[in-house]
Amino acid sequence: MKEAPKSTAAAVNRLTDVLSRLPGIGPKSAQRLAYHLLKASEEQVRELSDALVAVKQKTRRCRVCCNIADGDLCLICGNPVRDRSRICVVEQPQDMLTLEHTGVYKGVYHVLHGNISPAEGVGSDDICIRELMARLDGSDVTEIILATNANVEGETTAMYLQRLISPLGVKVTRLARGLPFGGEIEYADDVTLSRAMENRQEF
Amino acid sequence: MKEAPKSTAAAVNRLTDVLSRLPGIGPKSAQRLAYHLLKASEEQVRELSDALVAVKQKTRRCRVCCNIADGDLCLICGNPVRDRSRICVVEQPQDMLTLEHTGVYKGVYHVLHGNISPAEGVGSDDICIRELMARLDGSDVTEIILATNANVEGETTAMYLQRLISPLGVKVTRLARGLPFGGEIEYADDVTLSRAMENRQEF
Repeated sequence: MKEAPKSTAAAVNRLTDVLSRLPGIGPKSAQRLAYHLLKASEEQVRELSDALVAVKQKTRRCRVCCNIADGDLCLICGNPVRDRSRICVVEQPQDMLTLEHTGVYKGVYHVLHGNISPAEGVGSDDICIRELMARLDGSDVTEIILATNANVEGETTAMYLQRLISPLGVKVTRLARGLPFGGEIEYADDVTLSRAMENRQEF
Repeated sequence: MKEAPKSTAAAVNRLTDVLSRLPGIGPKSAQRLAYHLLKASEEQVRELSDALVAVKQKTRRCRVCCNIADGDLCLICGNPVRDRSRICVVEQPQDMLTLEHTGVYKGVYHVLHGNISPAEGVGSDDICIRELMARLDGSDVTEIILATNANVEGETTAMYLQRLISPLGVKVTRLARGLPFGGEIEYADDVTLSRAMENRQEF
């Protein structure tokens, strides 16, 4: 990685440094951003700085589903129209947003804030599984949809949850595996193709 | 451009919004950054927020060369070892950093903070040309190296400066035009190749 040359002003170097530690921002883009902000109006910079502080101070986790919320309940748990008999379990708040964007799901969510990853020392107690189980206790939930990622950690987390929830008599489903929309068989990887074959659906 | 789905917390949406207005940051990376900062420690976020405010409040323009500086003079103008008989004129502070990175130049700089661009309504009075001329007045500068960009605005600015400075009896040079290092003739564009031919050097 080519390091960006140091500026002649300490404050610019410091901002470049802090920015380059953010995900997806390399030293060159950090420098570009720093000089952009240096040229921006005091008001614009203040706006960004305030938004940064507010994101930590003015958000909390929804009391029901652990999603990011402004108050006690997130917008979805606070919406009386949502179907409370189905819970879709996701790893991150962003996953929920992407699912919401499709508009196909009308139930509620549960955000785990991570996945079980023995390699990174993250166990079942480190993510919001306890909150999910407490939520199921004595509830009339009929289906849990596991919408974890289709990678090793996501599958591990889904399997763990399936074993934990099935004995409660709640139906546990997960997102279908198969060819993505527009996917060409010639370029599909082995695992995707094997799963698409195993889970083939009646036409 | 696909818009990122809205979060369920207002503070996250606001930060995403502000971040997506920065150069090179689209709605998806803005969302990713916002959630990253939401998870980051309060201290890390405060550090970024402070660095942002400091970059506006703790920097000024060097009294001599208009470069970004911590105090009255930038690090280069404050360095007694630099050769003050040559001034390299650049459009942006970043250009100076990139030139410094090569280590070949030992003179001082002058930062214009822009270029002459009639299309964008930027004239010669809007960039730091007056400061450059004041600097030359009665000085023992022997060479001005025009290191503006090799595009229309950069060339316009260089031509304007050349006409302004030449009558003072100061030698005016500019960065060589030609094939870039590693450049293959087969893939060179017409303008680069024509200039490389016109400016051919004795071997």
